[in-house]
Amino acid sequence: MTGNILGERLTLISFGESHGRCIGMVLDGCPAGLSLSESDLQIELDRRKPGQSIITTQRKEEDKVEILSGIFNGYTTSAPICAIIWNKDSDSKPYEVIKNNPRPGHADYPSFIKYGGFADYRGSGRFSGRLTATMVMGGAIAQKLLKYSLGIETIAYTTQIGQISCNFLSYEEAKLNRYTNDVRCPNPEIAEKMKSIIIDARKSGDSLGGIVECISVGLPVGLGEPIFSSMESDLSKALFSIPSVKAIEFGSGFSGTKLKGSENNDEYTISEDNKIITKTNNSGGILGGLTNGMPLVIRIGFKPASSIAKKQKTVDLVSNSECDIVVPGRHDPCVVPRAIPVVESLVSFILADHAIRWGLISPVLSDRKK
Amino acid sequence: MTGNILGERLTLISFGESHGRCIGMVLDGCPAGLSLSESDLQIELDRRKPGQSIITTQRKEEDKVEILSGIFNGYTTSAPICAIIWNKDSDSKPYEVIKNNPRPGHADYPSFIKYGGFADYRGSGRFSGRLTATMVMGGAIAQKLLKYSLGIETIAYTTQIGQISCNFLSYEEAKLNRYTNDVRCPNPEIAEKMKSIIIDARKSGDSLGGIVECISVGLPVGLGEPIFSSMESDLSKALFSIPSVKAIEFGSGFSGTKLKGSENNDEYTISEDNKIITKTNNSGGILGGLTNGMPLVIRIGFKPASSIAKKQKTVDLVSNSECDIVVPGRHDPCVVPRAIPVVESLVSFILADHAIRWGLISPVLSDRKK
Amino acid sequence: MTGNILGERLTLISFGESHGRCIGMVLDGCPAGLSLSESDLQIELDRRKPGQSIITTQRKEEDKVEILSGIFNGYTTSAPICAIIWNKDSDSKPYEVIKNNPRPGHADYPSFIKYGGFADYRGSGRFSGRLTATMVMGGAIAQKLLKYSLGIETIAYTTQIGQISCNFLSYEEAKLNRYTNDVRCPNPEIAEKMKSIIIDARKSGDSLGGIVECISVGLPVGLGEPIFSSMESDLSKALFSIPSVKAIEFGSGFSGTKLKGSENNDEYTISEDNKIITKTNNSGGILGGLTNGMPLVIRIGFKPASSIAKKQKTVDLVSNSECDIVVPGRHDPCVVPRAIPVVESLVSFILADHAIRWGLISPVLSDRKK
Amino acid sequence: MTGNILGERLTLISFGESHGRCIGMVLDGCPAGLSLSESDLQIELDRRKPGQSIITTQRKEEDKVEILSGIFNGYTTSAPICAIIWNKDSDSKPYEVIKNNPRPGHADYPSFIKYGGFADYRGSGRFSGRLTATMVMGGAIAQKLLKYSLGIETIAYTTQIGQISCNFLSYEEAKLNRYTNDVRCPNPEIAEKMKSIIIDARKSGDSLGGIVECISVGLPVGLGEPIFSSMESDLSKALFSIPSVKAIEFGSGFSGTKLKGSENNDEYTISEDNKIITKTNNSGGILGGLTNGMPLVIRIGFKPASSIAKKQKTVDLVSNSECDIVVPGRHDPCVVPRAIPVVESLVSFILADHAIRWGLISPVLSDRKK
Repeated sequence: MTGNILGERLTLISFGESHGRCIGMVLDGCPAGLSLSESDLQIELDRRKPGQSIITTQRKEEDKVEILSGIFNGYTTSAPICAIIWNKDSDSKPYEVIKNNPRPGHADYPSFIKYGGFADYRGSGRFSGRLTATMVMGGAIAQKLLKYSLGIETIAYTTQIGQISCNFLSYEEAKLNRYTNDVRCPNPEIAEKMKSIIIDARKSGDSLGGIVECISVGLPVGLGEPIFSSMESDLSKALFSIPSVKAIEFGSGFSGTKLKGSENNDEYTISEDNKIITKTNNSGGILGGLTNGMPLVIRIGFKPASSIAKKQKTVDLVSNSECDIVVPGRHDPCVVPRAIPVVESLVSFILADHAIRWGLISPVLSDRKK
Repeated sequence: MTGNILGERLTLISFGESHGRCIGMVLDGCPAGLSLSESDLQIELDRRKPGQSIITTQRKEEDKVEILSGIFNGYTTSAPICAIIWNKDSDSKPYEVIKNNPRPGHADYPSFIKYGGFADYRGSGRFSGRLTATMVMGGAIAQKLLKYSLGIETIAYTTQIGQISCNFLSYEEAKLNRYTNDVRCPNPEIAEKMKSIIIDARKSGDSLGGIVECISVGLPVGLGEPIFSSMESDLSKALFSIPSVKAIEFGSGFSGTKLKGSENNDEYTISEDNKIITKTNNSGGILGGLTNGMPLVIRIGFKPASSIAKKQKTVDLVSNSECDIVVPGRHDPCVVPRAIPVVESLVSFILADHAIRWGLISPVLSDRKK
Repeated sequence: MTGNILGERLTLISFGESHGRCIGMVLDGCPAGLSLSESDLQIELDRRKPGQSIITTQRKEEDKVEILSGIFNGYTTSAPICAIIWNKDSDSKPYEVIKNNPRPGHADYPSFIKYGGFADYRGSGRFSGRLTATMVMGGAIAQKLLKYSLGIETIAYTTQIGQISCNFLSYEEAKLNRYTNDVRCPNPEIAEKMKSIIIDARKSGDSLGGIVECISVGLPVGLGEPIFSSMESDLSKALFSIPSVKAIEFGSGFSGTKLKGSENNDEYTISEDNKIITKTNNSGGILGGLTNGMPLVIRIGFKPASSIAKKQKTVDLVSNSECDIVVPGRHDPCVVPRAIPVVESLVSFILADHAIRWGLISPVLSDRKK
Repeated sequence: MTGNILGERLTLISFGESHGRCIGMVLDGCPAGLSLSESDLQIELDRRKPGQSIITTQRKEEDKVEILSGIFNGYTTSAPICAIIWNKDSDSKPYEVIKNNPRPGHADYPSFIKYGGFADYRGSGRFSGRLTATMVMGGAIAQKLLKYSLGIETIAYTTQIGQISCNFLSYEEAKLNRYTNDVRCPNPEIAEKMKSIIIDARKSGDSLGGIVECISVGLPVGLGEPIFSSMESDLSKALFSIPSVKAIEFGSGFSGTKLKGSENNDEYTISEDNKIITKTNNSGGILGGLTNGMPLVIRIGFKPASSIAKKQKTVDLVSNSECDIVVPGRHDPCVVPRAIPVVESLVSFILADHAIRWGLISPVLSDRKK
């Protein structure tokens, strides 16, 4: 299969370019009988769209989704669901400069070489963060499917921006507060500080990175397919397809590498409601690549946005000499807040795919319609 | 496809159980015309096999590989290459206890639930670290293929054990020294300290984790398939299939999330031999999911080995009550040193798969044999 | 992967329903640098569209294609190509009856059971012959790619309608004359007779089937991937996805089963231009699942169209009792003539996929654009 | 994926060469909890093995299967099942001649060109009919799985050898008598005549082809995945991977192309036990690519065996000139009888794969083992 296809039984095909006619996706393998409408996708897309606050890009994209196929009488039919967003507010002129002068930190240079100059470079084309909207379209459906069929919920939120980080919060707190502020950090005070340094970075023509934490609850025991489709494997594959993601850890992650086995192992016990649980959750809910019923915990590291206003050194591909570049276009000083719904979407998508692979979601969700 | 299959054009199927008759793999999609013999695989397997030093498990497994198909007159034929290792030094009796008392940190509990009690639990069955030998078999072939056809080389080495870590070394130093000591750390003094704390951990019935760094050089510009088969996506998918891996970062990774864009972006320049390179390599050689010609740099975090001699709390699945467990079997106090060839194998495998996907390695490597 | 995806390296995803908003496809894996516009697709779609002659359905569908992605400055970019046709002349009312009374010969009954009543049954939904237009969209691109990069040409034509069949014609004759008449039979006299019996069938409220022959020339030696992706395997998989196809044979096919080995074997010889060829072509250009450089010859049997005006017996799914049905809608008395471009498309698609799989078509077709 | 892999959820990987160390397969995706032993595979392999009667090749291959993985305590575990047969009675010397003089009707010539001379040509290597044993290994497991979980049964039998054919027999008769004679034709008198012409063909240094009919009963309604994984698509893909198969038809097939719609359509009715059935079965149990609950009926055409004792014309690849060849080795004068278990195996395999894809077979077959 090509690189534009994700998933085994639930399959997402992404198409479109940042400044082309539209961006879109086909989600195939969704069971029949799920109640679904455009608003289910729109609510998540609205959380991702630009122009929402002072700390995001000032491009105005309405990002109104249209479902073109796969829904009949308000329900999924098991046929492929195609959804698109027509591109509107795109200004391609500023991008002429990057044709021959690759922007530092961007895909420009390797893309130019790989595709022999044929790739659509306007607005970064296929490499644009805009394409994450196609992940959200598919992920929103997966999210609804998981909630309806298995009661699984996934939330993500900002825990670090630049050097400012937020202590651990309970799942309930995080769920309640993550969308109450512009940075999507569930701690309002920390959120304020984060916002402030993002504004500073913008002012100085610079950008910031950060960390997103993602938690899924309500998981069955045993999701994951050894040995190459471990939950870590498939989740990281999906998450590393988000532009700017450069690091991922599960549970205690890198800090766990400094612990002793006796400290890092999660001992088993019986919960008050008579279930087998672990006393700690250093595993992040995954053992041997399989979910163990504990909350799934992932931390995803985003590099600072590559597009900055400051002048940078680059090369001219025609003259093969050094030159300066001032990156064109309107960009986010920090992509982390807008990445929240993208992370939730991809994690939901992979969980749904695995639930279908292991037969936990039936291909027809309810009894025959009357 | 099932979870036991990795790769798109170069395909690895792993089979066998830790205490079954054998472990093995089928590598399919290897071009015809590569000179190959069992010794090409054996040299890498020997670096992974147990019983090599005081800091690894005392199990003695000869791990002698046999190639069953796909080679004719000393060359690959383009037919699937099956290779196996017969299991010998396995003692399954100690594992009776884990049937009902899952070991903390291991796959026992989710595996038991997932497979309804049918899974082969002896020596952890399919979840055993022993299965990484099947990754090495396939990876050794990929490594030779990459070296022969494109001049690509990949090395991995230990940079952290427990709390002791090693500063950055040049590629040449690392390549030269990584296999000169038991912990596979290219800095001999640090290696000595690491070995010492591993011995201490073993004595106290405990275990340690650590970090492996992996570098590939000689890469062409443009490997990687957007948007879901980015290099980060496919490399992390493969690497997270190694038991104990819980964290992965590329280039500046998590530390890069604290930098500003102007600090983390790698500016372009022209090298002395007139090539386009970047002044720094915070991207770890990957931009937009594509290789950019700079060295590929990955850091892989291993949790401390789950099997420890200390008594731990667990539950009895039959009586649904808490109990103690002393983990049976002979195990490594730290799996990091033996993981070095596994990391090299999987990274080589993914790079070779991508090189074939993008047409950089021809399906027949040389002219017709005379 | 799901059933709506075809191909390994060149990948076609079909979406849409007969009476939904649109039908469309995503073609992924097409090399960069192929000159392509909507007219390349439209010319083939026009040959498939209804309402072209007295012997096809009188539905008027303009079937105007729009390319939504993957083309930049008139060339393919290696990004997924999405193309759609908005549905217009669809009248869904007549289909209410088939909701509970399945039409003989159609997918209605198994589809109803399979999808629990959720499937879009209007105009047969996903099972409509209308979806073959999505195959033509992708196939037209494959056809152009094969012609441009390898000089491969594929033609199909009608050789039998009902009981009337046409003797073998040379490739040149067939190529020249196949689109000169309504039945797409290259023999004009036979074509006249065929047309006449189709008109008779329509008048009597009945339908006819027939046979399409397809020939590809200019093939390289060695396309096909043993043992499960033989050329026969992958071509038949694609062709049997055309509704109404119930039989396929290659070369001497079923009649060859009655010959002796000494009669059916194609002996080798040297051609006048010093190439290795076979004296006969009973193999249809495929030996051991691989192309042998001779013309590829396939014969595809279409059952008579299931939709007939005559009253038929069926059952009522609600009352579980027998009843009569008069099939609603406007339909072709014989689908064979309109299937010609569909057959050419799918055969071209599979050949292109195999050519890419074996590295015969490079991922970037020409030098860097100036 | 490569061409050596078949199936989506149930996956068969075939490896090995005719005269290599062994032939084998890995079956992955088989649910846990199926009682399975080597004898389940051996019984089907014995029906395929050579040297069973006067009308098959006189090679003696014991073809004793060994299961190397995936079974624990007599049950499948959900882990990949690897099984092999060690090659024994292979005499490779006679094959030196075909290295440069390709045998008419065989893969020799295209294989030589495709693989640049690197392919193992001994005994036809990967193109040997011997590899069908690997299909039988996997198919035997699928057959048991289908019988146990869904009550599906598949039988195949000879209905034509050369010019002699056998009238339709009831499923019960065919099932009872197909293995009672050397040609596997359920009509004993016709079988006698068939055997006689096979013996004649052998005596005259020639070979014969024929037709195998295959019927499956007990099928659920709705197997098949539109639009590219129709039942006809996936069954034909699998069956055309059997060497010598050149034609396939479902139900009325090619003869149906001459009927009118009113004759070929199968009207619905209610059976005595109150089920929806069709009065006739011209569809061969498949409508719109989906099973409709009626018996699945396939007819598979085999060309006469390519290996004949008669002298034939070929070319010398070194001197590029014409020459004679007398095909070496010991071969079947007619492969049809030995193909019966192969056809049953592949049809069972595809049905099982589809049943798993549509969630009709659970990943764990029974309750937790006590």
